[in-house]
Amino acid sequence: MASIFSRIVAGEIPSYKVAETDKFYAFLDINPVAKGHVLVIPKREEDYFFDLTDEELGGIMSFAKRVAKAIKAAFPCNRVGVSVIGIDVPHAHIHLVPLNTGAEINMSNPKLKLEASEFQEIAAKIAANFK
Amino acid sequence: MASIFSRIVAGEIPSYKVAETDKFYAFLDINPVAKGHVLVIPKREEDYFFDLTDEELGGIMSFAKRVAKAIKAAFPCNRVGVSVIGIDVPHAHIHLVPLNTGAEINMSNPKLKLEASEFQEIAAKIAANFK
Repeated sequence: MASIFSRIVAGEIPSYKVAETDKFYAFLDINPVAKGHVLVIPKREEDYFFDLTDEELGGIMSFAKRVAKAIKAAFPCNRVGVSVIGIDVPHAHIHLVPLNTGAEINMSNPKLKLEASEFQEIAAKIAANFK
Repeated sequence: MASIFSRIVAGEIPSYKVAETDKFYAFLDINPVAKGHVLVIPKREEDYFFDLTDEELGGIMSFAKRVAKAIKAAFPCNRVGVSVIGIDVPHAHIHLVPLNTGAEINMSNPKLKLEASEFQEIAAKIAANFK
């Protein structure tokens, strides 16, 4: 069965899309630890991040770097942090989170409750800064 | 002034080395959240992870993948997680942490207190599995 993320890429499940290439896709985490919390995934379904090929790892990090620049431009911060855990969804994904103190990237932090309109605004703001 | 990590790479400050290439270096975090908690750094000093070049990002992830395989072989786990925060030391570094539940990678978790002999054993065990 396709992972929930493959269904998002296929458009079967809606997402707040931020950026996309032929191989990678970036969208808002709907349980964000901060405004601007984005998930970056390979379109090819692979459970474990380190089972991606070296070429895919290089590609996804270059793409994540462009997304991180857009996040930082949209939500000014000290830097954008990276977290790959991957126990929950069996489709490799990188969390990108705008950081000031560093504590924001703790995934056990309380999640923000945002309205659909807020998610839309956040995604649009990041997408507008994606180059 | 050279960062503490550059001084580690130069051998001016000791470290529990796990693996090394001409461009990257892996060693134990001395404030580990789990046994097998490793830091992976570029030898070239760059503060912000996403200021690494695309080539460096690809290179460091391929190297981190090899280190992660060695960690998983030495310390059996569900997978090896990745965290890049970088507020503390101004030299880009990737945390690699063996995960079972996913909660282990929270950097605000209590740190393990290990003896020098334990650090040596852990580093040797991971190094022996590095390919």
